[in-house]
Amino acid sequence: MKGLVFKYKELIDWSEVPAPKIIDNEYIIVKIEVFTFSHSDYRPYLGMDDTVAKNTIMGHEGVGIVSTIGRKVTFLKVRDRVVISCIIHCNQCKFCQQGLYANCLNAGFILGTKINGTYAEYVRVPYGESSVYKLPSEISTEQGLMLSDVLLTAYENVILKVDFNKINNVALISDGPIALAILLFLNSYYKKVTVFGHHRIKLEVFKANGAEQIINSKNNEFGDEQYDLVVECVGNDRDTFTLAQQLVGFNSIIISIRLFKKPVIFNLNELWYKNITIKTGILNNGATLEVIDEILAKKLDPNVLVSQVYNKDEVMEAFNQFENKDYFKKVVNLWL
Amino acid sequence: MKGLVFKYKELIDWSEVPAPKIIDNEYIIVKIEVFTFSHSDYRPYLGMDDTVAKNTIMGHEGVGIVSTIGRKVTFLKVRDRVVISCIIHCNQCKFCQQGLYANCLNAGFILGTKINGTYAEYVRVPYGESSVYKLPSEISTEQGLMLSDVLLTAYENVILKVDFNKINNVALISDGPIALAILLFLNSYYKKVTVFGHHRIKLEVFKANGAEQIINSKNNEFGDEQYDLVVECVGNDRDTFTLAQQLVGFNSIIISIRLFKKPVIFNLNELWYKNITIKTGILNNGATLEVIDEILAKKLDPNVLVSQVYNKDEVMEAFNQFENKDYFKKVVNLWL
Repeated sequence: MKGLVFKYKELIDWSEVPAPKIIDNEYIIVKIEVFTFSHSDYRPYLGMDDTVAKNTIMGHEGVGIVSTIGRKVTFLKVRDRVVISCIIHCNQCKFCQQGLYANCLNAGFILGTKINGTYAEYVRVPYGESSVYKLPSEISTEQGLMLSDVLLTAYENVILKVDFNKINNVALISDGPIALAILLFLNSYYKKVTVFGHHRIKLEVFKANGAEQIINSKNNEFGDEQYDLVVECVGNDRDTFTLAQQLVGFNSIIISIRLFKKPVIFNLNELWYKNITIKTGILNNGATLEVIDEILAKKLDPNVLVSQVYNKDEVMEAFNQFENKDYFKKVVNLWL
Repeated sequence: MKGLVFKYKELIDWSEVPAPKIIDNEYIIVKIEVFTFSHSDYRPYLGMDDTVAKNTIMGHEGVGIVSTIGRKVTFLKVRDRVVISCIIHCNQCKFCQQGLYANCLNAGFILGTKINGTYAEYVRVPYGESSVYKLPSEISTEQGLMLSDVLLTAYENVILKVDFNKINNVALISDGPIALAILLFLNSYYKKVTVFGHHRIKLEVFKANGAEQIINSKNNEFGDEQYDLVVECVGNDRDTFTLAQQLVGFNSIIISIRLFKKPVIFNLNELWYKNITIKTGILNNGATLEVIDEILAKKLDPNVLVSQVYNKDEVMEAFNQFENKDYFKKVVNLWL
């Protein structure tokens, strides 16, 4: 089969690799229909992270059809259409028992980093029954793909962590897909949302989806408004935590969703008397069924997150488009 | 009358000063029976803070008898025994309407810093009706004095901010009076509490009041235990936030109650995947009636916080004892 293999920094290849086989009774194999690129794949490619092991197939987001199941798998059947969670979990260890699947002692964020991932025609998923979800027929394959990571990152780190009765205005520091997903959920709450970004095409999408105010983040004029909730989710090491601390109001919340390489400066000396709460976190994919219900109830349409769809002959072209920051999620459909 | 006047760094004096007069219809004057020293008074004395204006009577904690009331004061009467909140608030401004009395636009933490405070025979309290509370006869004067600041700092910043159903073990970084007050409240919840400190006499009091484990904070061996709740409340610039970040477990909380001069280093790069929440804050004295109810229900005895009582001739001796860290609150009773 074909898979996108990380060789080393700045060398990846869509090449012929051995197809996966069942090596454990709890594993399943999924024939991938679509996958999508993520910043956390591009960073190792650039050499900014060393999270991906050499000669590993990258990718942690995917939707496909179950093609083989281990002997202990009972709830899933061959031909089920499933979304693969970017967090794989055993459902047995002490962290899984608390719902902290990302911290699973036997798995976690391993797909496409420690074990072969979803940028391939087939992927083997450990702990298959707890790590994939069947997609209802009303949800399209591209919509379902947004459940692997983006929608759940937004929902679990923001929507589930905040009492929106106490929130009037929200600042989103980022114009990327996570920020857009947060906006899509926030639309149910009718809050005033301000987006700090600088990619014109993407910012138009934010406006079209309910953002009330756009502030150019490259400009140093951020206004005097103080926000009840500030979410920074730029996905890189740019110091947006400093901006978040400037924007946060009294008795308010900062949520930090980022891949960090370095510590940050926390102005506790200025913020302590403002009664600030800071929340950090990684998704667990534990709320996937809730988000499926939100989509079925038409509270949000994940298609807004999909900027482009490429076919099976365009994998490298799609990956090489990564640095073009004018788009949200780029999807590859291997069945096109 | 006599008052303890801050002249300048390292010079204070228990000297004859003019008695206060009513200058506004909402003011009251309280004849002080007891006051107690606080770290936030000693810091300006040492020149570590410039929060106290020169020639101001220091002090923000006190219990006494209402001696004069302004014309608009209706709920309080002369001879009522009251505790003075360390946070004075107008109850009208936009912050007061949200319960953020410490951030009151017209007052806040002004007593003993911007206006004459409680280390005196009489103190004038602005916005008297919203800034003092009548003490029930069952509560002693020394017990009531702990409601000015210590008990409310503990209750509002920890007890009201945490869902204790999710907490099994607690780390208190400090062996001071705030930490002890937190322990007294925590005893109702039957949690395992570990105290990090190094003052032997005080640590005995923690043990006698239910702390399960004592760890010497001067030692660099803190053990492997991870805590569901870490509270740092050392009251000075020592970098206990670093220790708090080492001790905090997955899906857990750090609460930071401190007077800071400098920013701190926040290891967001290590903590983001642990789903950490950080809460900071200053008390508002808004929950005073709730804490009075807890004392009346005998859930805790604030007398534990009082290490020594001095009489009116021992004010300077008591103040000069401040650097003796072997004790909790030192109280001066001007009627002895």
